[in-house]
Amino acid sequence: MAKAGHPVSPLAPAAFPDLPVIDGVEFASAAAGVKYQGRTDVTLIRIAEGAQIAGAFTKSSTRAACVLDNQAKLAMGGSADQGAAIIVNSGNANAFTGARGQESVNAVTGAVASELGIPAAHVFSSSTGVIGEPLPHERIVKVIGDLARRLDRAGAADAARAIMTTDTFPKGASATVAGEGGEIRIAGIAKGSGMIAPDMATMLVYIFTDARIPAGLLQQALDGGLGSSFNAITVDSDTSTSDALILAATGRSAAAGITSLESPVGQAFAEALHRVMRELAHLVVRDGEGATKFVEIRVTGAASDADARKVARAIADSPLVKTAIAGEDANWGRIVMAVGKSGASADRDRLTICFGDMILAENGWRAEGYDEGRASAYMKNQELLISVDLGLGEGAQTMWTCDLTHGYIDINADYRS
Amino acid sequence: MAKAGHPVSPLAPAAFPDLPVIDGVEFASAAAGVKYQGRTDVTLIRIAEGAQIAGAFTKSSTRAACVLDNQAKLAMGGSADQGAAIIVNSGNANAFTGARGQESVNAVTGAVASELGIPAAHVFSSSTGVIGEPLPHERIVKVIGDLARRLDRAGAADAARAIMTTDTFPKGASATVAGEGGEIRIAGIAKGSGMIAPDMATMLVYIFTDARIPAGLLQQALDGGLGSSFNAITVDSDTSTSDALILAATGRSAAAGITSLESPVGQAFAEALHRVMRELAHLVVRDGEGATKFVEIRVTGAASDADARKVARAIADSPLVKTAIAGEDANWGRIVMAVGKSGASADRDRLTICFGDMILAENGWRAEGYDEGRASAYMKNQELLISVDLGLGEGAQTMWTCDLTHGYIDINADYRS
Repeated sequence: MAKAGHPVSPLAPAAFPDLPVIDGVEFASAAAGVKYQGRTDVTLIRIAEGAQIAGAFTKSSTRAACVLDNQAKLAMGGSADQGAAIIVNSGNANAFTGARGQESVNAVTGAVASELGIPAAHVFSSSTGVIGEPLPHERIVKVIGDLARRLDRAGAADAARAIMTTDTFPKGASATVAGEGGEIRIAGIAKGSGMIAPDMATMLVYIFTDARIPAGLLQQALDGGLGSSFNAITVDSDTSTSDALILAATGRSAAAGITSLESPVGQAFAEALHRVMRELAHLVVRDGEGATKFVEIRVTGAASDADARKVARAIADSPLVKTAIAGEDANWGRIVMAVGKSGASADRDRLTICFGDMILAENGWRAEGYDEGRASAYMKNQELLISVDLGLGEGAQTMWTCDLTHGYIDINADYRS
Repeated sequence: MAKAGHPVSPLAPAAFPDLPVIDGVEFASAAAGVKYQGRTDVTLIRIAEGAQIAGAFTKSSTRAACVLDNQAKLAMGGSADQGAAIIVNSGNANAFTGARGQESVNAVTGAVASELGIPAAHVFSSSTGVIGEPLPHERIVKVIGDLARRLDRAGAADAARAIMTTDTFPKGASATVAGEGGEIRIAGIAKGSGMIAPDMATMLVYIFTDARIPAGLLQQALDGGLGSSFNAITVDSDTSTSDALILAATGRSAAAGITSLESPVGQAFAEALHRVMRELAHLVVRDGEGATKFVEIRVTGAASDADARKVARAIADSPLVKTAIAGEDANWGRIVMAVGKSGASADRDRLTICFGDMILAENGWRAEGYDEGRASAYMKNQELLISVDLGLGEGAQTMWTCDLTHGYIDINADYRS
């Protein structure tokens, strides 16, 4: 649901995908009027007994109360023998709300726990929206009974809508893995559009699977995918106080349990999970505030992976690079600038810059056969690939970003009003 | 001179200041057609025999050829016994132009050296404009004879105009110090509008003084002022490949020579120099691309100065903070976000955020007596002060920035065309 005046991103997929039902996971959404009117803004997710939970969270030092609460709960163990739940609201981030923030988390998660008969230690929560305003948690508590009665295995699409803030389309992705004795299904939803930077750049992501896998392995599989998904996207270099990814495995698949990520099925599961994570991360970029271009930045040949990451991020976050892309200007000089400011080791005379399969610059100089007309024509594509090879070593990192347009200013100069 | 469609910044001063003549410094400007048509784009500055030179340059690893050349020349010593010169062009940065970049520098500085009879080792040069296009240096060489004939002590204002790129007004500042036996004068010009980030965020700055002071002390006085001027401003977090500050002292003042920066006159000179540097830096922010607000970010109470700098820069560079300011939205939650992402030590419950003299947030919570109406009214000011106290230690840093508006997108989505 787009805000009035913020049309659906031109980079949106044609439709929300058909997500497979994950046995043991149910959703319900409601309009609680936390802030928005005339739309759903609270989602309850119940996860059946015996589930295993993993998570990843923002590194912000001003994390929201619910993020701190989730981290504390997960630190006590991810085995939810008596089941688990996730309660999410949009419209208010419950961040920088002092001691009252934790009280709101306790009120909401406590109400869910008693309504569903689940230990509060396995009721997770997320809040997303304005920072610094007290959360009217009583409005959320009031709808929990109704939500519990309407829990539905097919409710993921509605949930993807209820958690949106400045998002212009709901986001979902799935994968299926052939296990031993049956299929393993993975389905996830996400929200995110602005305040996206790669220290868990997600805003909110919930991924479910029916795999039978212990919490420790699940966390390991999750951690292994962050670097090529949510930690590899940026919209505006700003890091949210609320970023949270929760991954739950219900163990209801007929397939044999996964006991190692090195086994063929363990590898296939991790790869499928990473694919779902990357797809959700890409959808966040495709809904980047004001985005009109989806851009892959591929850095190779750096002295180290850390250096490659610095260069990729400097390019992906550069307002001058992003406005040039918005203007469909093949201004590769700004890529040179971004490499230079990144702090990574770089040697002008070994640098190669390509747009798509066109070499624009090499050997410290505009490429022979450089064709401005062809480069400009390439910039008209909606999906762009910018490759930079530093010619120094084996370090590599790919990141994804969008352009910086008038739409970003429109959305963010009046978000609270 | 503004580009068509880019009106003069609303933050511009009413007029270019009356700069004092610096005995021993002469300027001439010409229209060489490097790229722009119908305006001056080359400036020659001659500095008399016996001058002392100091400088500061971008830390970019993709520095332009002229920056590398200036650094190499200065490293050999700042005493210009036989005089010095500076030649500057706008319209082309001569950056990432391979070996040909250095050839262009040699051609231009060599032509100036032979025209003026100055060793090439003391002919400095700057180029600013598009990155990655070969510099048509023959157009510059062609006007050097004419420039040399028209050198004029009163040419600083014309020079400030000739070095502009996307700047919408020329920038100058001056100060006078009472020395022993006479006055010491300082006058500077600068250009800069976008690609401004605090690793020598200047684009181009030339400061002249008639002080009698050795090059080593002059460099020390310059270095001492960078942290509170050009290294404390940001427009768009992007670092130029061309940033250069050159400071020349002609020794023509009647005042006694400065032999120490601890002496009263040494202190007064350094303070006056820093004031001129800060004023020029502020003018760059006031001409920040698309800027409509001039914003001071004052961070105190950090665990260290380095932490204070991280927080100040995270706030000053945040697109979400800058768009909120553009929208006159007192969205202090985005300040909390920026503190959180900065990487500096921060404790939510010790953080205090003020706009002007209004406390908006303290003790991890919206301030008692917070008045949204008053905060919103404050945001309508053209000059804003945002103060953040971390409550942890003595670390402090003040930075200056501007808002992020549609104007920035307008200017940068079509800069090359």
